[in-house]
Amino acid sequence: MPEKTNDPALRSWVESAQGSLFPIQNLPIGIFSTEQKTPRAGIAIGDYILDLAVCFDKGFIKIEGVSENIFAKDSINSYLELGRTVWRSVRSQISNFLNAENASNASYASEVLVLQADATMHLAMKIGDYTDFYSSLEHASNVGKIFRPNMEPLLPNWKHLPVGYHGRSNSIVISGTDFHRPNGQTMADGAEKPSFGPSKRMDIELEMAFVIGKSTKLGDCVKTQDAWEHVYGLALFNDWSARDLQKWEYVPLGPFLGKNFASSIAPWIVSIDALEPFRVDGPSQDPEVLPYLQFSGKQNFDIALDVYLTPKDGEASLISKSNHKYLYWNIPQQLAHHTVNGCPISAVDVYASGTISAPYHA
Amino acid sequence: MPEKTNDPALRSWVESAQGSLFPIQNLPIGIFSTEQKTPRAGIAIGDYILDLAVCFDKGFIKIEGVSENIFAKDSINSYLELGRTVWRSVRSQISNFLNAENASNASYASEVLVLQADATMHLAMKIGDYTDFYSSLEHASNVGKIFRPNMEPLLPNWKHLPVGYHGRSNSIVISGTDFHRPNGQTMADGAEKPSFGPSKRMDIELEMAFVIGKSTKLGDCVKTQDAWEHVYGLALFNDWSARDLQKWEYVPLGPFLGKNFASSIAPWIVSIDALEPFRVDGPSQDPEVLPYLQFSGKQNFDIALDVYLTPKDGEASLISKSNHKYLYWNIPQQLAHHTVNGCPISAVDVYASGTISAPYHA
Repeated sequence: MPEKTNDPALRSWVESAQGSLFPIQNLPIGIFSTEQKTPRAGIAIGDYILDLAVCFDKGFIKIEGVSENIFAKDSINSYLELGRTVWRSVRSQISNFLNAENASNASYASEVLVLQADATMHLAMKIGDYTDFYSSLEHASNVGKIFRPNMEPLLPNWKHLPVGYHGRSNSIVISGTDFHRPNGQTMADGAEKPSFGPSKRMDIELEMAFVIGKSTKLGDCVKTQDAWEHVYGLALFNDWSARDLQKWEYVPLGPFLGKNFASSIAPWIVSIDALEPFRVDGPSQDPEVLPYLQFSGKQNFDIALDVYLTPKDGEASLISKSNHKYLYWNIPQQLAHHTVNGCPISAVDVYASGTISAPYHA
Repeated sequence: MPEKTNDPALRSWVESAQGSLFPIQNLPIGIFSTEQKTPRAGIAIGDYILDLAVCFDKGFIKIEGVSENIFAKDSINSYLELGRTVWRSVRSQISNFLNAENASNASYASEVLVLQADATMHLAMKIGDYTDFYSSLEHASNVGKIFRPNMEPLLPNWKHLPVGYHGRSNSIVISGTDFHRPNGQTMADGAEKPSFGPSKRMDIELEMAFVIGKSTKLGDCVKTQDAWEHVYGLALFNDWSARDLQKWEYVPLGPFLGKNFASSIAPWIVSIDALEPFRVDGPSQDPEVLPYLQFSGKQNFDIALDVYLTPKDGEASLISKSNHKYLYWNIPQQLAHHTVNGCPISAVDVYASGTISAPYHA
């Protein structure tokens, strides 16, 4: 009964979970270490992390047919390869273990819980391929106005297919990692030749990424109705962008040095099973899409997304307010498109949404 | 004295090496298996493969400070991470072992040699990131004419920076791997909406790829004069392309489904040390490039490249004749550009050249 893990009335014996970002209904997975513990998988609960490696050793979590402690590794790749049935079973066991109805488990707290404040978080996955989509109608229109001011902002293909491009995997870093302002070429308006130096037009992109568990082989296609079997979950993603570098380099082969200096992903990956109660309809799609992109059901999620900017020695300001539900192209459509030509997907590929802009409300 | 391994007078006691594609001066590395042997590293010599795992076990190859048999693995990644000094030492030891002056080593032939005809070749590397450049002036001009018939074929940035894009790693397959003709969207001239079906404009790209050994960290830049410390060697590469899919999808974010269904790479990776005698000047670059792209010395290679097409039940026809030396942008420039913004490189990334077209000779 995995759906029970989303019951809003559920409470955990971990008191700090109630009303926090990490209630028992969430249970995101990540990789952490402490001074005493090597990097391993954990689940956020309130102010704590549940050490999955210890839980597995102690038999609090069992996976049928798996005897190796796959949580005692420095990535969740092996776990994600096991697929949805296992993910649901593990989620259910963890929810049960942490449930206030099983308050006697609190006696194990000192063995299985680590304060988040005492832990260092690491990139949860060894990332295979990384694709960045461009699936927000409002964002694609805004970028079009910036880069092609004298043309129709939305290009003719945009409403027929989820436009995307391959990005750089090995510059994806965990949120909070410092990086240098990128150097590169820019071409000033009216200049005869490009100049070189640090980017003057650094930008953020408020995105959500999904991570792949179940793999496919070369030649396989994922249908929209089967897509969720392959997706473990979602994480916040920031595709840092140097717009001045991008503007000069991107024709005709797309973004390159304007993007590949660093992209940040959140340490915690939220499972699709945790997001089920937040399914909503996305924007209506007009014109009608080709059959391989058609879908049924609610395929967007009501996830409020805010961006705050904090200058050095300054105060945080809200600079963007959006929601995952505004994405024009949904995840089943993105996966169906990406694989319709037989392109394989693997654990753990990362697929970002592109900036999720909100509709303009005057 | 690694340069001795390129002496044209060198001969091997492996008789079939003389006059073959795999003389003692070449010694490319790959991963092979046989009915008896699990996948492992080998070196091509004449009609044979030298089993490096066995050579290491028997002490014919020694690597200072390395006791684990890194050749007994299903990829050359661990070997490539060791860097140029080790690569040169290993090359020298292998050349010495196979040298006709040490003909007594022929007594080990049955232990260390495997007939290529009895072996199955595998993808030599677990590929990290894959970038495809677009570094042939003639190719960029030809593609421009196809995709943008009413515009100047070469775009304004092309002579200022080595244009490239990120490709899909997990659809790179070893040469000879079958794949399906890709399905996808195309927009016919004058049509009001796209149609769906198998590509009708499949194309090849005659490319060479280089593979990275020594890694860099986020924020590091590789200077042109240091580039060869990071590059293990070259391999033939074919970036299969569905031009009709590509034409409809590629604006504004570059090639995607038109490319990511399959790319083929040769089983054998030729070391840069084997290619030293073939260094030549590339085309002159005008306008002058920015300082970070300037270089000295001969940075192209005189490698003749022919493409033959063999229809089913038909005979092979020569359809393309080119040479690596025609590349406008060379490898040190490609690496310097790719990393000038701090983008890290890793063992084993693959960087393809883009189609290497030849100048038109009327």
